[in-house]
Amino acid sequence: MTTLLIQNCNILQIAPDAPQANILHGYDIFVRDNRIEALRPNAADEAAGINPDDFDDIIDAHGMLAMPGLINTHAHVPMVIFRGLAEDVSIERWFNDYMWPLENNLQAEDVYWGMMLGLAEMIEAGVTSVADHYFYMDQAAQAVQVAGTRALLGWAIFGSGGQAAIDQTADFIQRWQNGADGRIRAWMAPHAPYTCDDDFLRASAKKARELGVGIHIHVSETMGQTRASLDKRGITPIQVLEQTGIFDANSASLLAHVCGALPEDIDILAKYPVGIAHAPKTYLKLAMGFAPVTEFRAAGIPVGLATDGAVSNNTMNLWEPLRLMAMTQKERAGTPEVMTIPEALYIATRESARVIGMGDQLGAIEPGYLADIILLDLHGAHHQPLHSITASLVYNMQPNDVHTVIVDGRVIYRARQHLTLDLTEVAQQVSASMTRLSQRVPNKRIQVYNP
Amino acid sequence: MTTLLIQNCNILQIAPDAPQANILHGYDIFVRDNRIEALRPNAADEAAGINPDDFDDIIDAHGMLAMPGLINTHAHVPMVIFRGLAEDVSIERWFNDYMWPLENNLQAEDVYWGMMLGLAEMIEAGVTSVADHYFYMDQAAQAVQVAGTRALLGWAIFGSGGQAAIDQTADFIQRWQNGADGRIRAWMAPHAPYTCDDDFLRASAKKARELGVGIHIHVSETMGQTRASLDKRGITPIQVLEQTGIFDANSASLLAHVCGALPEDIDILAKYPVGIAHAPKTYLKLAMGFAPVTEFRAAGIPVGLATDGAVSNNTMNLWEPLRLMAMTQKERAGTPEVMTIPEALYIATRESARVIGMGDQLGAIEPGYLADIILLDLHGAHHQPLHSITASLVYNMQPNDVHTVIVDGRVIYRARQHLTLDLTEVAQQVSASMTRLSQRVPNKRIQVYNP
Repeated sequence: MTTLLIQNCNILQIAPDAPQANILHGYDIFVRDNRIEALRPNAADEAAGINPDDFDDIIDAHGMLAMPGLINTHAHVPMVIFRGLAEDVSIERWFNDYMWPLENNLQAEDVYWGMMLGLAEMIEAGVTSVADHYFYMDQAAQAVQVAGTRALLGWAIFGSGGQAAIDQTADFIQRWQNGADGRIRAWMAPHAPYTCDDDFLRASAKKARELGVGIHIHVSETMGQTRASLDKRGITPIQVLEQTGIFDANSASLLAHVCGALPEDIDILAKYPVGIAHAPKTYLKLAMGFAPVTEFRAAGIPVGLATDGAVSNNTMNLWEPLRLMAMTQKERAGTPEVMTIPEALYIATRESARVIGMGDQLGAIEPGYLADIILLDLHGAHHQPLHSITASLVYNMQPNDVHTVIVDGRVIYRARQHLTLDLTEVAQQVSASMTRLSQRVPNKRIQVYNP
Repeated sequence: MTTLLIQNCNILQIAPDAPQANILHGYDIFVRDNRIEALRPNAADEAAGINPDDFDDIIDAHGMLAMPGLINTHAHVPMVIFRGLAEDVSIERWFNDYMWPLENNLQAEDVYWGMMLGLAEMIEAGVTSVADHYFYMDQAAQAVQVAGTRALLGWAIFGSGGQAAIDQTADFIQRWQNGADGRIRAWMAPHAPYTCDDDFLRASAKKARELGVGIHIHVSETMGQTRASLDKRGITPIQVLEQTGIFDANSASLLAHVCGALPEDIDILAKYPVGIAHAPKTYLKLAMGFAPVTEFRAAGIPVGLATDGAVSNNTMNLWEPLRLMAMTQKERAGTPEVMTIPEALYIATRESARVIGMGDQLGAIEPGYLADIILLDLHGAHHQPLHSITASLVYNMQPNDVHTVIVDGRVIYRARQHLTLDLTEVAQQVSASMTRLSQRVPNKRIQVYNP
């Protein structure tokens, strides 16, 4: 049993059921093993005779802000290895001429080092959990184990892989469920309705039910995909998922993007335990349109923040999607009065936790919650004068403001230094493969994008 | 005469008349006094027997990228003192219920310390020049003198100030033109057509002609303003400026925002030496719509990057407007193929220099240009692996990647340390006035927003 005392910080509190933000000033956070045990005013500790010698570790957090570690609800973390290789091209070319030819080069070891690099970048930005969707996920899981973060992993599979792909991903789930001391969970991850036929989606849903896990899938990424589905089959991609039983899995579904949702799709989604991953930097950059976040939430569908992969989003810095979500929803509504700062912070914390199925364990600093905590240094010139801490969190944060990162009660980044990984080694390992990774194989792609 | 040698860096080169980016690897930059004297391959220096002892200062820039200092073409820098005080409100309330009541509190000393704070933040982000538009501009000029940056200053005046305001701003221009060893220029700065009547605009234009200076003004900030002008007067705000002679000043006009430009406005603007300041973070956050950047540039009207003030943009980090310009223009066009990386970098460098009337002196690292140079450290996890330096500049940069800043041949920030100002003192001075500055004076505002 280990104990950690975080002394004399300010704590961001988000109300459980309403977008209300509040700051507790001058509090201590008591952590026992991997959970938050208590919050107490620093002065009260002194009165209660708290003895620093009783703790295994103490962090002097005077003047810092503690908030829940950020949760990236949809990414392809190892794609950092391809960062910058597919710029200024249409979505069709992005898939068919860049990513899917490039991914022919992918080897298991690339995924390990790419995952490590992306995790390092996320740790520096205060991201403590990620829902990842990629290939060679045993290597991704090993990287999570080493880096010390938390992850919900899905091995991306295509209809072309047939039942063998489903069985292999089921094996992966059984190997890694509750791995890394419980920090890893694993779900089914069929890629998308446009790369998985209906039988494959049905078989994936059946396997998820058998295993008692959720499903992480891309759907209705653009209005173009929705229109293509309507043209070809007369139903929307959301209807395809409903009809193939994807939403009937025992636990939640995690739907990436859904920028192409029609009003009737939202009515369908509202009936099921689904959450939506929202990656607005990718949407702007690929001109995918604005997802109807306000309408999703009005229908009771939770929305979480996401980076998507670094070949569309370029970085894994989740503060950018946070402010872009707020700003693009204002632009979309035609008024700055929607998506207020407390609402954006609610989505970034409690609601993102709900989207990955951990709303009762993550996304808040309160007794009983898992101790995934980040300490922020808001003394930089870009935060001064600090009239509004919450405005600074949404609109001013830079990764370098993240001072310390704690996951599952363990300090993995302290005073801006990694404690679980050697970034120089990781960067060298990735760089060593750069030439090979940047070769596109002509006329050879892992899939074809033709929704 | 002082000499500076920047050794063994990589240099971003942007072609003078086309959006083409290129990197020179392993070059030295020779600076004499305030200008770039030569660029030479590092190996060639050795062969030529260059002796480090011959230089007053040497920077070992091995592995760093040198690029022109960024140019912020429209800001209200001292407004950082109000940062975070007007969030999630409509433009009408932003002016009438927040900013204009708050600015009743403004004192000359606030502007000095606010300018220092905003300049510090910009230096940290690699911003070496700013076109600023605010009040108490003697204090702003003094701050620029101390901080060592470059500025084009305009004392904001309203029609309500009458001829006295115009005469006072003329005095300011004469006091500070070519001040701070030539780093300061000063222009006329009538606020906007909706706060300046036609006679006032005419008198401002006349004074600018007499003084031989340009005019920096807000115009057509939103389509709502354009429609209001059409309703009230039958002409657009751009037509108002044309008819009052604003565009006839001897030198260029700098127009802030212009999100509400009609096609016929663009035809008018194309006839005059105008430049447009583009601040897309403010536009998204206040739901002002997208400015037609692509159309401006197709008509030959130069566009520069801008932050606007920190009460709408929240930070003075110009890397954000850079990537937001690229992304919002893609979204607006409905395709990722427009506003490519080289085009965005062209706007950030040479074209922003043109917008502030210094296209032949700033915005490029080449012999004869002023030595405003920033050195970037692209080794952070968020840039790795560095398949594309130019993609990283547009989509991945964080202020903390800025390592060293040189303005007018002088190093003012080195290894992330300020050499011209004491940030702790500046932040303390600003914080000391926080309570007074945050008091809104009920029913008392410096102007009324009713375009």
